[in-house]
Amino acid sequence: KELALAPKDDFDRSKMEDLLKQRFFFDQSFAIYGGVNGLYDFGPMGCAMKANLLQAWRHFFILEEQMLEVDTAMLTPEPVLKASGHVERFQDYMVKDLKTGECFRADHLIEATFEKMLVDKKAADTLKEEIRALMPMIDGMSKEDMGATLRKYNMKSPVTNNDLSDPIDFNLMFATSIGPTGQLKGFLRPETAQGIFVNFKRLLEFNQGRLPFAGAQIGNAFRNEISPRSGLIRVREFTMAEIEHFCDPDKKDHPKFASVADLELTLYSGCNQMDGKPPEKWKIGQAVKEKLVANETLGYFMARIYMFMVKVGVDPKRLRFRQHLSNEMAHYACDCWDAECKTSYGWIECVGCADRSCYDLTQHTKTTNKGALGKAFKQDAKLITEHLSSLDAEAVSQLEQSLSDKGETEIAVNSKNFTIKKEMIQVKRYQKTMHVEEFVPSVIEPSFGIGRIMYAIFEHNFKTREGDEQRTYLSLPPIIAPYKCSVLPLSQNAEFAPFVKKLSAELTQCDVSHKVDDSSGSIGRRYARTDQIAIPYGITVDFDTLKAPHSATLRERETMKQIRVPLDELPAVVRDLAQGRRSWDDALKSYPLFEQQEASK
Amino acid sequence: KELALAPKDDFDRSKMEDLLKQRFFFDQSFAIYGGVNGLYDFGPMGCAMKANLLQAWRHFFILEEQMLEVDTAMLTPEPVLKASGHVERFQDYMVKDLKTGECFRADHLIEATFEKMLVDKKAADTLKEEIRALMPMIDGMSKEDMGATLRKYNMKSPVTNNDLSDPIDFNLMFATSIGPTGQLKGFLRPETAQGIFVNFKRLLEFNQGRLPFAGAQIGNAFRNEISPRSGLIRVREFTMAEIEHFCDPDKKDHPKFASVADLELTLYSGCNQMDGKPPEKWKIGQAVKEKLVANETLGYFMARIYMFMVKVGVDPKRLRFRQHLSNEMAHYACDCWDAECKTSYGWIECVGCADRSCYDLTQHTKTTNKGALGKAFKQDAKLITEHLSSLDAEAVSQLEQSLSDKGETEIAVNSKNFTIKKEMIQVKRYQKTMHVEEFVPSVIEPSFGIGRIMYAIFEHNFKTREGDEQRTYLSLPPIIAPYKCSVLPLSQNAEFAPFVKKLSAELTQCDVSHKVDDSSGSIGRRYARTDQIAIPYGITVDFDTLKAPHSATLRERETMKQIRVPLDELPAVVRDLAQGRRSWDDALKSYPLFEQQEASK
Repeated sequence: KELALAPKDDFDRSKMEDLLKQRFFFDQSFAIYGGVNGLYDFGPMGCAMKANLLQAWRHFFILEEQMLEVDTAMLTPEPVLKASGHVERFQDYMVKDLKTGECFRADHLIEATFEKMLVDKKAADTLKEEIRALMPMIDGMSKEDMGATLRKYNMKSPVTNNDLSDPIDFNLMFATSIGPTGQLKGFLRPETAQGIFVNFKRLLEFNQGRLPFAGAQIGNAFRNEISPRSGLIRVREFTMAEIEHFCDPDKKDHPKFASVADLELTLYSGCNQMDGKPPEKWKIGQAVKEKLVANETLGYFMARIYMFMVKVGVDPKRLRFRQHLSNEMAHYACDCWDAECKTSYGWIECVGCADRSCYDLTQHTKTTNKGALGKAFKQDAKLITEHLSSLDAEAVSQLEQSLSDKGETEIAVNSKNFTIKKEMIQVKRYQKTMHVEEFVPSVIEPSFGIGRIMYAIFEHNFKTREGDEQRTYLSLPPIIAPYKCSVLPLSQNAEFAPFVKKLSAELTQCDVSHKVDDSSGSIGRRYARTDQIAIPYGITVDFDTLKAPHSATLRERETMKQIRVPLDELPAVVRDLAQGRRSWDDALKSYPLFEQQEASK
Repeated sequence: KELALAPKDDFDRSKMEDLLKQRFFFDQSFAIYGGVNGLYDFGPMGCAMKANLLQAWRHFFILEEQMLEVDTAMLTPEPVLKASGHVERFQDYMVKDLKTGECFRADHLIEATFEKMLVDKKAADTLKEEIRALMPMIDGMSKEDMGATLRKYNMKSPVTNNDLSDPIDFNLMFATSIGPTGQLKGFLRPETAQGIFVNFKRLLEFNQGRLPFAGAQIGNAFRNEISPRSGLIRVREFTMAEIEHFCDPDKKDHPKFASVADLELTLYSGCNQMDGKPPEKWKIGQAVKEKLVANETLGYFMARIYMFMVKVGVDPKRLRFRQHLSNEMAHYACDCWDAECKTSYGWIECVGCADRSCYDLTQHTKTTNKGALGKAFKQDAKLITEHLSSLDAEAVSQLEQSLSDKGETEIAVNSKNFTIKKEMIQVKRYQKTMHVEEFVPSVIEPSFGIGRIMYAIFEHNFKTREGDEQRTYLSLPPIIAPYKCSVLPLSQNAEFAPFVKKLSAELTQCDVSHKVDDSSGSIGRRYARTDQIAIPYGITVDFDTLKAPHSATLRERETMKQIRVPLDELPAVVRDLAQGRRSWDDALKSYPLFEQQEASK
């Protein structure tokens, strides 16, 4: 079954990368300065595709589910990331070449060395067996395990063959300092999630105090990878789209679950991984019923993730959900299923779907409650807090009045007097909210790596025309194609120009992004070029266009079939096709087939 | 004339800020941790408005003008920003409180101290006159000028009244280091423009070698402001939308200029500023003809900027273009007009429109040409470069073949032998392109500060209902309103629910973002709440909705008028209104007026 899922292994990655580079979907950043590993720039085609992908995401998740989108700061002060656990635990282990100082990620180095040993003809079979047993354990190894493994197998730098250091902790966050004094330490956020968590109270208020609700954020995050590789898969700066669904920990059912219950997903459970069994197909309803997937909300999001991925061009046969083993879980998660896509790099995580439970909100509450009152009154703070929360509505109003008039007020607790300053009132209100709620909400977090999804889409849609190995193209679905349509004059005949101009203006009017290619290449050559940048529909203005009633041909990328459509209907036809409101089959039935240009190339 | 342009001075900023905070348009970041100056989070309303604004921008500029959008890395290695001049010159002067170490921006401190002195009743009139003459010079002061001014007027810390240090250079970029060794110094980009410049060659190739063309980028940039203030106006992390229009320095005419030539803009020329004269109204065509605005391309973009700003809700009476004086020009600019909006903070720059001439491309070319060949061959590099560029097409092909087969090749120049490695070929090609072009393109740069534009829009659209001071609202144009429509059941009667649900689903189908408010407040109260978040249209499901033929009321925010529309027509009517395809006046004519609910509140 595992085998049946695997794509052909003869995928020619460099051929695809050539196309993506040549047509400037993306390329290494700062290449004219020698480049920086792990940083990529999206060119016009990649950027348009990314914008379309994010627009589709926003529509599919935020609009359809009425989520609360936020856009929060990337610069993050240290205390926030201390509370979230990132300062202490967001790290990889690295080893250094003892002579050159070059750094490697310890787990990657161990894996690569093992892989080399496995194909080494001189290595003993018993050794190979030992290694094969160790391979699945690498992800869960402690620093000590890794050090022992490095020593046991006498591993060296893969570049120089020099000796290596023991594994060293390396925090993956980029550090900087905020403000002119250099005293406020900060980091570039390693995930967008924290920006939602620190706004939880505001969002709850915005939602009129009601649970459940979901916050969402699209934005960049940063991880100082030790040795980035694998193109877009492992980078230092990347766009994420994250959802934090807040709900009552005791009510993880979902009102729309029934609508997805019959959807069949490929699930690779922790048990199956441990037992060496392959992934299995499950109806998500059944998986939740049998407790393989923890609850309806988690299951609902897994189904929605599947639907979204397929909609934007991921091959469903190369998409599976893999459950995290307990030793590889992030420090904040209590259950996690990754949506993984099969690529020439193997199965890669594209979307994480984690039950973060109440980890983050608890952490931020703990830390911030130590805030103003704690600092001012230390051991008395608890006393004061209790006193304040016991006040009735009227007493609270009096307190507020006094604070707003004089900036401070005196209170007496256990015959001690305390001066409460205005700045401290926020803290009190926060505690009140938590008190009213009487529980800390649970969080279900679907987290999308946009660059990885794009990469999987590229691989799943890279094709060559049958019988013409050189003619590569991308079959991106119209919804994410950079341009929806091309407009090509058959030749450089000046009479075509006004028709091209008019069509272009009308397509803009209809919101159809398009590319005019009036360069001198043959029409076949220009079609091939538009196929390479995944343009799904192509209009050609030819000599018949000049005659009344005016018309032009419309070509579809996958079938390469063409129809002849009246000029005044064309923009709307293309718009409807591009937005998926009309199918190509339907268009084929409505307009006469046209067969000349492609043949004449 | 200047006076005529000024808005009412009684603008109640704190009232507006209350609304923006309460409805979570935006608020200070990390407030539960005490907040960080100069960092703001956009909540659901601000975030949706920002997304709509950027979508409108993308449509108005990138789609309509077929620009090439890129999305490039924020982390930028030091050499790039050295070449661009930012490492050396992107700085402000700061002064420190000698006792507390608190930092102030020197020019702001001087300005604020002067302003205080001007309203000081005890200050002599001669002193006031002297200060009034100095005020306009502050922007152009050197470090020494500022030091002298601080000493002459014996300026102190405005917070503690302590003595201050002399002005110190303070670079505004956030520094970090990239990679595990800590040896690659980098910065967070201070503008998105450089990401376009370093991709110039790729974009030129993508455009099939043709000029003019424009690159564009929407993204975040970072400036470590010394003492951020004024809310969204001066922040440390912000979204920009920048255009770099590359053209032949001798051909700065623009094919579409005629279409905007008659547009009237308020221009505040450098001369008028120096002579103490007010801004003047100019047709942009006339301004270019009389050389007040340097060229058609600059003029075309100024007109487009004006049209865009008005479209998204900026009050044209509070919008002007101010020419930079030569002493305040950024280090890269040779002419610059700022689109400024009048707010309660005064006139603030929202869009810069600069002729950067060929500064950036020249800098990057100079720096990178010293690259591979220069490093490898030092004084011989020029010789080799000349030799390489003199090769004919066939010789170049042979060279490439040899490089790709063996990774290197030998060439003989002036009877010396050199080994050319594969890595060096990129450099050669870059030089070739420049050679073929035979000039370095000029750059016209319209640069939009998205946060500032949003702030100006907020002020220009904050209103109170006549006769009801407490009833504040935002009259954002539908194109950028966070939600286009509300759906309100008249009461909590259960019979309304299925209609609300159906309408909501149909609106989603039509891409109309909307908010369902089924809370228990009176209908008038709920209308007031939707007015506060700028929802332009409101559907109310009432008892008449229950009867066949089913219908509901539709209310418009500005006029508060309501019409009664059949249920099956409603979603399309709202969509057309929200997208500006249909006017409210037209809708008023097509459907019967309805006058009950609002009265009954």
